[in-house]
Amino acid sequence: MTSSSAMENIYPYQNEPIWSRSEKTFARKAFDAALGRELHEVIQEAKKMASQIQQSSDLWELEHYLTERRKQIDRTYDYRYSQLTLVFGKLLCESRLGEEGLRGLRENKLKSIRSYAKFLAEMDAA
Amino acid sequence: MTSSSAMENIYPYQNEPIWSRSEKTFARKAFDAALGRELHEVIQEAKKMASQIQQSSDLWELEHYLTERRKQIDRTYDYRYSQLTLVFGKLLCESRLGEEGLRGLRENKLKSIRSYAKFLAEMDAA
Repeated sequence: MTSSSAMENIYPYQNEPIWSRSEKTFARKAFDAALGRELHEVIQEAKKMASQIQQSSDLWELEHYLTERRKQIDRTYDYRYSQLTLVFGKLLCESRLGEEGLRGLRENKLKSIRSYAKFLAEMDAA
Repeated sequence: MTSSSAMENIYPYQNEPIWSRSEKTFARKAFDAALGRELHEVIQEAKKMASQIQQSSDLWELEHYLTERRKQIDRTYDYRYSQLTLVFGKLLCESRLGEEGLRGLRENKLKSIRSYAKFLAEMDAA
């Protein structure tokens, strides 16, 4: 029993923040909302591009656009708690999520998210 | 000189039909027309699919459709004289080209084209 209790207190990844139940609920909503906005944007752009197709090059441009956006969305939206800080940091950096959209998270996570967003912004500027 | 003249009379690929200038002109037109019709069909379908997109699955279905049609078009439309008989046979089999669209070709080619179209139709039916 003693060893079992001791194990329960050891979080498997020491450096990763623990997500409380309310934070998980909040994170899921924020994640889904950002993904929904991004998908909506791609849908609108695809409809616009399709309506303007006149020749085959426009057609393959639409295909290329869709493939690139699908890959980028797949890479970005990784809902694993071990990745969420990075995901939200990226979304914050790209203005796909505002500070107000992160209000339900604890300060330790907000700090990491802002820090990663800042790092990405500096990388982009370099 | 003698050997040079002799060489000129030897067609490099003995089993391939020689395309006369008028046949080449005709083949190019028939090829371009069939390709144009097929591209027009894909453009119309893409516009229709895009206009009906409601959710992300519809979006990726459009991408998949475009990728598959691009690959199929790339595979089909191979304008090499060594391949043209097969290309026209395939287009004839798929009703993308009618007999009247092949009228400018000589009988030896028409025979091969019809024969290949028949072979493909039998393969499909099997």
